[in-house]
Amino acid sequence: MNSHATHRPDRLAGSALGLPVAVPSTALFTDRYELTMLQAALHSGAAHRRSVFEVFTRRLPEGRRYGVVAGTGRVLDAVENFRFDDDVLSFMEREKVVDRETLQWLADFRFRGDILGYPEGEVYFPGSPILRVEGTFAEAVLLETVVLSILNHDSAIAAAASRMAVAAGGRPLIEMGARRAHELAAVAAARAAYVGGFSTTSDLAAGFRYNIPTVGTSAHAFTLLHDTERDAFTAQVQSMGADTTLLVDTYDVTTAVRTAVEVAGPKLGAVRIDSGDLLLLAHRVRQQLDDLGAHGTRIVVTSDLDEYAIASLAAAPVDAYGVGTSLVTGSGHPTCSMVYKLVARAGADDGADDGELVAVAKKSMGAKSSVGGRKWAARRLDADGVAEAEVLGTGEIPPELAGRQLLVELVRGGEVVGRESLDTARTRHIEARAGLPLSATQLSRGEPVIPTEFA
Amino acid sequence: MNSHATHRPDRLAGSALGLPVAVPSTALFTDRYELTMLQAALHSGAAHRRSVFEVFTRRLPEGRRYGVVAGTGRVLDAVENFRFDDDVLSFMEREKVVDRETLQWLADFRFRGDILGYPEGEVYFPGSPILRVEGTFAEAVLLETVVLSILNHDSAIAAAASRMAVAAGGRPLIEMGARRAHELAAVAAARAAYVGGFSTTSDLAAGFRYNIPTVGTSAHAFTLLHDTERDAFTAQVQSMGADTTLLVDTYDVTTAVRTAVEVAGPKLGAVRIDSGDLLLLAHRVRQQLDDLGAHGTRIVVTSDLDEYAIASLAAAPVDAYGVGTSLVTGSGHPTCSMVYKLVARAGADDGADDGELVAVAKKSMGAKSSVGGRKWAARRLDADGVAEAEVLGTGEIPPELAGRQLLVELVRGGEVVGRESLDTARTRHIEARAGLPLSATQLSRGEPVIPTEFA
Repeated sequence: MNSHATHRPDRLAGSALGLPVAVPSTALFTDRYELTMLQAALHSGAAHRRSVFEVFTRRLPEGRRYGVVAGTGRVLDAVENFRFDDDVLSFMEREKVVDRETLQWLADFRFRGDILGYPEGEVYFPGSPILRVEGTFAEAVLLETVVLSILNHDSAIAAAASRMAVAAGGRPLIEMGARRAHELAAVAAARAAYVGGFSTTSDLAAGFRYNIPTVGTSAHAFTLLHDTERDAFTAQVQSMGADTTLLVDTYDVTTAVRTAVEVAGPKLGAVRIDSGDLLLLAHRVRQQLDDLGAHGTRIVVTSDLDEYAIASLAAAPVDAYGVGTSLVTGSGHPTCSMVYKLVARAGADDGADDGELVAVAKKSMGAKSSVGGRKWAARRLDADGVAEAEVLGTGEIPPELAGRQLLVELVRGGEVVGRESLDTARTRHIEARAGLPLSATQLSRGEPVIPTEFA
Repeated sequence: MNSHATHRPDRLAGSALGLPVAVPSTALFTDRYELTMLQAALHSGAAHRRSVFEVFTRRLPEGRRYGVVAGTGRVLDAVENFRFDDDVLSFMEREKVVDRETLQWLADFRFRGDILGYPEGEVYFPGSPILRVEGTFAEAVLLETVVLSILNHDSAIAAAASRMAVAAGGRPLIEMGARRAHELAAVAAARAAYVGGFSTTSDLAAGFRYNIPTVGTSAHAFTLLHDTERDAFTAQVQSMGADTTLLVDTYDVTTAVRTAVEVAGPKLGAVRIDSGDLLLLAHRVRQQLDDLGAHGTRIVVTSDLDEYAIASLAAAPVDAYGVGTSLVTGSGHPTCSMVYKLVARAGADDGADDGELVAVAKKSMGAKSSVGGRKWAARRLDADGVAEAEVLGTGEIPPELAGRQLLVELVRGGEVVGRESLDTARTRHIEARAGLPLSATQLSRGEPVIPTEFA
């Protein structure tokens, strides 16, 4: 590992590509060691051994009771687009990442293996085989980084979103964290938040890319731009109609609410409060709106909300919550600790699909050991139909669990077969969460709500 | 604000664009309210008022002593590519984001204003005007989200990287967090880490996009793939040469180190330890390598390192650190709290550049108030040339501070004039940090190392 940078051409900040934000292929979302392993394994012949990699996490973030699978659909996109085109190959040649033989092998590469996984929106627990990638070592090892990047990020956001949705108790949640996250991570975050239970996003890129409904009206700057708050409200209502949302906390909230109803009339759509004691203000503003006859005017609150702040407003007359920072940073847990591990591989070098697979696992000391073997996973229910254990095993699944299997086919022989809509994933998450013991939705810290058992 | 989604076409997970990861323009990295404010301000005429927005943060993350500006170069890319092309306009028409008049205005849009800012790699403190965007309200308001996304993310990573670089005391740091972050956030993170003091990255996309040196050799999967550890080491050394890095903790470290030197000879490049008690193992492995005559073989450690773990290994015979999760999550602070606020705007509607600007600021209760007016910023030094205060003010800068101004020109009349290389930013950061009081580089929690004064 050459960890001392030798002299290199100047690293320009500018875009060499002409594309504002892109790289030309998802194959670049790869740690260099995957390519060097490929080269060495092509050299030794072991690259063609049939191999099984599993994605799982050894633990949930501290205190969390369940995890939420998100990003599966993006993984499918990434696998489909995982090609080494000329740009990428010349980069790797220039950078001396791999030798010519390996470059030639990569030029024809596409993933032709199989991927199974927990469907998007499903819940997971420590050890759950969230994704299983099976193919030659060569093709499966290359997917490690991009698969983990997507699942670790998106699942972290979805887990936070799910807790916030529980706390909101059916009131709509607006995702508005784009400014607190990398600009494209924000798009994935809006998508994951939707899976986890959010209704809308402020992020136009997320609307564009995933057709998530977008919302938003005005910021303090709009009020400050005008000579008076009344001028600003008038401009907004004249342009957007009375059904708009007026931001009422630039100066004095009570004055602003009075002005807002004077300008828009009692059919004013909503007011937004973005600072101060939201519990107190929500009650006061509701009373004031009702006194002014604006009974249908909704109250939207936004101000560094997290699931606890949302829960604390459960009894307040709030109609919608806007959530930013704490959503896109996973509410204290911005990434999951999912890993991508070789769990079984063919014992012989012939690469035959029917060769017997050998279970493998890292054996050294400490917390990084794992359980070898290609696993099935099922959720066992109690007599009332409530989940009581995540059961994992190798070999044949016991007949009583066969109907409760969690892994579904996503890619078969390189073809995506598990594509589905975001709404399907969103609905699945609601159902999966509802199938857990009631204590799953407590916001307080706790253990995983069901244990993981190895059969 | 319509926060209840009406029925909409199915949200497909698949790529509608054919591009794996991209959106067609940075103009989509925009919260919807910026467009609705634009529409209403075009309607009221206030859209043409000359306006000044500033990016600043009200506080550093708790316990941090300085912040690090990163992402400036990416902001310049984003501004250059901020265009509303047909794809984007038809999306906004379909989504009914704005009216036809506004769509027409957007079709011709490009930013023609001025941007000044702290140069990339500079340090910052609460209140520092990290970026100042000046133009019409219309053109400046649109940049809010993309500017904040980039600066909030990249600066969070650079701040963590800087602390790790201090802890590493000159030993090289390898960025290897791609798998723990959104796949494109990871690329920006590698870039920000380089600015903050890292030497290399594992992420091929970061190498491709920003020409950051890439490194990496093998994972546990490579050892497990082969029938024996010796087979794996032999395959790697035959393919990559003896100067490679062998991973020695799949089974037993002592056995692995012995095998490694037997296979590669005493010229083995490095061994990597990825689990266990790194302090103990580093000493033991160094002794063993020396006993085997492999005096030049380096030791690379990687295992959930953060700045504290790195510091704890200062006296250990470690040659390089690989850092993943804690880097890309900002070591506990995955985002900064930078905001983009209107601080001044013309009082008249004529939009004349020479119209007098009125300082504006949100006035309501609590922590969200800010200081109005277009600011200068300078770092005052003590008699020994060490920074003693971040001084901000409006109007004329006092002559004794004029030579210590922090804002530089980045965009003039819409043209980027502040482009520079990543190495320039990286060097600047080392110098800026060295100019702070010594206590800046303590890892323990503390207050900002210099106070911010308003002149």
